[in-house]
Amino acid sequence: MTDLPETMKALILTENGYSGTAEGPAIDRLEPYLEAAEIAVPQVKDGFALIRMIMSPVNPSDLHFIKGEYGEPRVKGAPAGFEGVGTVVAGDTPLVGQRVSIAGAGLGVWAEYALAPIATLIPCRPDLKDTDAAAQIVNPLTALALYDEHRAGDALIVTAALSQVGRMILQLARENDLPAIAVIRREEQAEAARAAGASECIVTAGEWRKNAARLISTVKPRLLIDAVGDQAVADIFGMMPNRARWLTYGKLSSETPRLETLGHLIFMDKRIDGFWLTRWFRDTPPDAIANAIGTVQERFVTGKWQTETGAIVPLDQVMAKLPDALRQPGKCFIRL
Amino acid sequence: MTDLPETMKALILTENGYSGTAEGPAIDRLEPYLEAAEIAVPQVKDGFALIRMIMSPVNPSDLHFIKGEYGEPRVKGAPAGFEGVGTVVAGDTPLVGQRVSIAGAGLGVWAEYALAPIATLIPCRPDLKDTDAAAQIVNPLTALALYDEHRAGDALIVTAALSQVGRMILQLARENDLPAIAVIRREEQAEAARAAGASECIVTAGEWRKNAARLISTVKPRLLIDAVGDQAVADIFGMMPNRARWLTYGKLSSETPRLETLGHLIFMDKRIDGFWLTRWFRDTPPDAIANAIGTVQERFVTGKWQTETGAIVPLDQVMAKLPDALRQPGKCFIRL
Repeated sequence: MTDLPETMKALILTENGYSGTAEGPAIDRLEPYLEAAEIAVPQVKDGFALIRMIMSPVNPSDLHFIKGEYGEPRVKGAPAGFEGVGTVVAGDTPLVGQRVSIAGAGLGVWAEYALAPIATLIPCRPDLKDTDAAAQIVNPLTALALYDEHRAGDALIVTAALSQVGRMILQLARENDLPAIAVIRREEQAEAARAAGASECIVTAGEWRKNAARLISTVKPRLLIDAVGDQAVADIFGMMPNRARWLTYGKLSSETPRLETLGHLIFMDKRIDGFWLTRWFRDTPPDAIANAIGTVQERFVTGKWQTETGAIVPLDQVMAKLPDALRQPGKCFIRL
Repeated sequence: MTDLPETMKALILTENGYSGTAEGPAIDRLEPYLEAAEIAVPQVKDGFALIRMIMSPVNPSDLHFIKGEYGEPRVKGAPAGFEGVGTVVAGDTPLVGQRVSIAGAGLGVWAEYALAPIATLIPCRPDLKDTDAAAQIVNPLTALALYDEHRAGDALIVTAALSQVGRMILQLARENDLPAIAVIRREEQAEAARAAGASECIVTAGEWRKNAARLISTVKPRLLIDAVGDQAVADIFGMMPNRARWLTYGKLSSETPRLETLGHLIFMDKRIDGFWLTRWFRDTPPDAIANAIGTVQERFVTGKWQTETGAIVPLDQVMAKLPDALRQPGKCFIRL
């Protein structure tokens, strides 16, 4: 075992539990939620490994969580951060010395060291980049699982189409010749959405509803994969045909949409439900999870999926620089 | 075959298709939608029987339909009316001369005679009252099917609790010792709701939300059977625990509810979907349908279910008297 320091740098939560708000992941200042601190390095315990973290992405779910708007309560004083990559430095596992990815609410990976259950360590292929390894779980497994919810031949609608999950789903749809309509906010995003794999775009600006209704009645998409949850999404759902399903997995908007077409649920057999990766992990057999992770690494290494990497912010500059970095294109990472 | 007249009295639709509105079933005047007319008696055709109608209920779905707000388009000039009881007077069936119930969008039973597919005729036990026989399909089968959607041991919430369907579900819950919370609008309705089978009541008046949340957190109901679809119902759904399901089968309110808790669908595995008896008939095996109908007749004859009968309006007085009659307690019937 390497000589370990007694303390480490970490970004710790300043509050307990839930905030009761529903503002969404937008964040101007980290100070109300996070604090840069020097805390004790966790002690290795039975069944756990200690990881020297290398890098972690900043996902919308991390921001929901630190704001107290996620499905798990905050623990004041514990580090934030849901997933990342690092090197195993201690623990009763042959993976000591190897690079692994870890993920989970409560792991607290925005720190120099993190503890993770040995059973959940994901070894990384050597040809997998650190950025891809750091972000291989939350978004890629969500994208795979959401895509798998379509019934054979049913076209898709994807909101937040240029997010990492959105792009991954569009790419899967293109590979499988499945029409996928990207929902975007500005006409200038259409080219990027088509390049990512969208067959068509709905631009929710100006007088967009009539064109959208016409497009939907032609393409007949029945699965709406949604991370936004605003009125535009509710209206798009209302335009969809019989047996349409609004599958929500994120809430980027703070709007509370009105359901103008509740009657569609009765007469048109529509439904609204949600996806949460934590539940997927609980309900999916271990071999299917391992299989999905193999698929993710293969797709990254062969270039079928590419992480649009944005700013990479060192741990000791996160408090000052992350809010600005989040406003730049691409996914932000923290170098740990 | 009896000597049949050439023409008959009927209440016919004045419009085609859908209205595009979503006002709900409230109705002040029938004139915009219906007309009392003398039209040709339908000709018997292969596979169909002609029924001399006796009586038909006026259900909310009939009112939605004549207003153009139901899941099937109107046909101008055709009679309205979805279900009723009558005597078979012609057709290639041993049921000629017998009393049968019929139901279906497009049957047009608000007339002296109606055609119905022989395969769908429901023979009535002699001990079944005409009012119960007339209304034995739409509401009772809906109540049975909705009740069957609860998972073993899961408590229920029932909106429009004093409607015919609401009362039937409450009675089923009581027989099975299942806690059922009735949602009512006025405190004065609580006694009737408890008598019908409710274990508890939520009165959606005044400052009701805090008490409702406390009650729901104690009883932990997971199935919300809803015929109202207003903001109060959406708020009640938001108070319900993990795995709660909002099952909508009617839209008595014209409010468009806001979904304040879309995130619950993600983190709490909640969902919203709909029930339509027409789909239930399509998706349910014939022997299960026959079984359910047997159960319904048995429950009426033995008094386990009782139709709260309101006004019975003769066919030739419907245009003048039905709107007033609908404002009285109990279910309205048309004597044909």
